[in-house]
Amino acid sequence: MAIKIHGSPFSGATLRVVAAAHEKEVDFEFVPVDLRSGVHKQYPFLALNPFGQVPAFEDGDFSLFESRAITKYIAFAYEGKGTALVGMELKPKVARGVWMEVEAHQFDPSASKLIWELVLKGMFGMQTDKAIVDENEAKLATVLDVYEARLGESKYLGGETFTLADLHHLPQLHMLMGTRVKKIFDERPHVSAWCKDILARPAWQKTVTLQEQAYQGIRSQEHIL
Amino acid sequence: MAIKIHGSPFSGATLRVVAAAHEKEVDFEFVPVDLRSGVHKQYPFLALNPFGQVPAFEDGDFSLFESRAITKYIAFAYEGKGTALVGMELKPKVARGVWMEVEAHQFDPSASKLIWELVLKGMFGMQTDKAIVDENEAKLATVLDVYEARLGESKYLGGETFTLADLHHLPQLHMLMGTRVKKIFDERPHVSAWCKDILARPAWQKTVTLQEQAYQGIRSQEHIL
Repeated sequence: MAIKIHGSPFSGATLRVVAAAHEKEVDFEFVPVDLRSGVHKQYPFLALNPFGQVPAFEDGDFSLFESRAITKYIAFAYEGKGTALVGMELKPKVARGVWMEVEAHQFDPSASKLIWELVLKGMFGMQTDKAIVDENEAKLATVLDVYEARLGESKYLGGETFTLADLHHLPQLHMLMGTRVKKIFDERPHVSAWCKDILARPAWQKTVTLQEQAYQGIRSQEHIL
Repeated sequence: MAIKIHGSPFSGATLRVVAAAHEKEVDFEFVPVDLRSGVHKQYPFLALNPFGQVPAFEDGDFSLFESRAITKYIAFAYEGKGTALVGMELKPKVARGVWMEVEAHQFDPSASKLIWELVLKGMFGMQTDKAIVDENEAKLATVLDVYEARLGESKYLGGETFTLADLHHLPQLHMLMGTRVKKIFDERPHVSAWCKDILARPAWQKTVTLQEQAYQGIRSQEHIL
């Protein structure tokens, strides 16, 4: 198969790329990278991503890294297939650009810290730091106030159609929905409706099965051991 | 004048946008935002940037925010003027996309922490935290190893021509060159040549005068007081 997505089902950045591939209905091979083994910090993986992080991506003899650059590549290279994730009219194009930056610089920093504290630390048997949770929950709530106003003006962040600006949020939204932080989304009607809408997309549901299968794999290993 | 850049000469994100405007040879009005007064956290500024941060940008009745979205807007909207900051061929386009993400997610976090510790804290009469400097200098050095390899393959990050992927680094590079961290750039020949090349660009030199004038303004105020 021409397209390979190298990554981990427990990496939000990996799932972001898988979601884009499903939206565009492109076939790909998922190459699992076992992050516990540290294989991503060594060659040959470093030839795919010199920063030693997942995901990495190959399309034939063409390779690239950084999840948000990969989703853009998929959206443009497979323009004629699946969902149109990138409109080319000036106004929605600019709005999409703004909200993609907002996701990366306003939403993701607090969202990622909350996921680390409330989800991942538990998986590693580490203690949650309540002060960090409180600080980032307050920060994220302020960010969501701006989202609430935006989503009162247009159905999606980039305009009236679902684009990469929305898609980039999916992995973090999915993880946060299982935590106490869900309430700051529920409290804002437009944000809440937007979350429900984009998390229910068939391409995202398909993406999530990758993580579910991985969890099942871990659980069955535990039964054997 | 149709284009207005609202910001501060002491904000790297503002200078990023000014540099793009100079590269594209578009006329603009610079609207200074006095960050000490907190005016950016209130209306009417919040109507331009709901996150209350500089810069904000207007082109006629069209406004946007987030520096890296604004530079892209300028590059595409004024495609026919000045330097071509965004090529449209697939390979360089994808490389540019990757290295724009690298700047935002690998370079900027450490660079910004170093600038805060080594430049801005001093301006506010605060003490530098040596442990934070050491940690981020080491992180940035590892990032620059990857840049050294990349810039050994192509003259610029996106390929053989200067693009937004390079331009986005300019404000942070400029600030770091006046600190002890300069040595980690000097130690890497391709990185060092790239820095010198892009910092010497006429559009960047013109951008820097904005900061120099602001420093002179502060100094003359101090003489009066």
